[in-house]
Amino acid sequence: MVERFELYGYWRSSAAYRVRIALNLKGLEYEQVPVHLARDGGEQHRPQFHEISPQAQVPVLRHGARLIRQSMAIIEYLDEVHPAPPLLPAVSRDRARVRALAMVVACDIHPLNNLRVTRYLERELGANEAQRLAWMQHWMALGLEGLEAQVADHPSTGDFCEGEAPTMADCCLVPQLYNARRYGMDLTAWPTLLRIEANCMALGAFQDAAPEAQPDAP
Amino acid sequence: MVERFELYGYWRSSAAYRVRIALNLKGLEYEQVPVHLARDGGEQHRPQFHEISPQAQVPVLRHGARLIRQSMAIIEYLDEVHPAPPLLPAVSRDRARVRALAMVVACDIHPLNNLRVTRYLERELGANEAQRLAWMQHWMALGLEGLEAQVADHPSTGDFCEGEAPTMADCCLVPQLYNARRYGMDLTAWPTLLRIEANCMALGAFQDAAPEAQPDAP
Repeated sequence: MVERFELYGYWRSSAAYRVRIALNLKGLEYEQVPVHLARDGGEQHRPQFHEISPQAQVPVLRHGARLIRQSMAIIEYLDEVHPAPPLLPAVSRDRARVRALAMVVACDIHPLNNLRVTRYLERELGANEAQRLAWMQHWMALGLEGLEAQVADHPSTGDFCEGEAPTMADCCLVPQLYNARRYGMDLTAWPTLLRIEANCMALGAFQDAAPEAQPDAP
Repeated sequence: MVERFELYGYWRSSAAYRVRIALNLKGLEYEQVPVHLARDGGEQHRPQFHEISPQAQVPVLRHGARLIRQSMAIIEYLDEVHPAPPLLPAVSRDRARVRALAMVVACDIHPLNNLRVTRYLERELGANEAQRLAWMQHWMALGLEGLEAQVADHPSTGDFCEGEAPTMADCCLVPQLYNARRYGMDLTAWPTLLRIEANCMALGAFQDAAPEAQPDAP
């Protein structure tokens, strides 16, 4: 039986982008089901998507009959069912470091930068465009500063966030830097992150996962 | 050699509360190092805490010479180095479900409700007290609704979020419901969550982790 993966995603969703990188690093074939996210009337709110995601969120991975939600849970799942190449190191203390770096993006930055959040700021708190941009940049800068502090000069950091092969942390870092550029940020304050990003972007798995390379990109 | 765990936390931090539950469920002894979080001049911003957490966040677990940051990474770590009793199920698809439920709290709710976030709303966007309360309740309601939808009538749900023993998902759920009550929310719309919470709170591991039971509680 051919293994079948379907990824409900959106070209510019940075959480979907993480999962695309992970699937590509594992060399797994998958079909994309684009869900067009939009400020108003986006496809994520359609009734037929509710069963896929009761929270109207991408990504969701369908593996056979099983739906897996939440990008970090999806990546852990892929690493368990397809262990090679690994996206987490072999030793628990190193695995903890990789997960903690990934969580800086997944818990400390990205949830604050979601579309639904800036929309709330605009609608409920009257935030104008400049204030919304400042909001985006504020949380990204704080988080990226924290990430840089944890990878610069750390003995475990190599060509990638942890050692000499990409891990879950790199799957999160690259989409986050993409998003930071999209919002006009100057990234030169974080040279280690930029060095790691360049090493990632030399790999086909990362290139093929880029937003502009997706079928639903305009 | 006696194994030594130190937990940098704060009695009311819901991320620290998650880790206390996990340590208690594992039956691990640990020393608490309270970090008094505050809106202004909190101990998390002191220079001596910077090395512990460059992001000025709790919890951080010290295990021997190793610092582990980020509550979800800490719980995964504990589950790897002390596998019994497990905080994740044995089968990957069930593990993915537990992680995804935990991430609803850890990624979709809690990051938006952090002290630093409401402080930003107040300072930079002029949000008044009623607006800050509405913000807190909005994200909690959305996330808890999503959680309820994913546990109610799901065949894997048992006395706990997954099956008949507490997992990482319950470690996240209970502190989140505590926090929701703190902000005056009516939780009756989510009966499955309340049923699971009651089962958790019947256990000493959860009772002993409660904010009011901590040495730094006022």
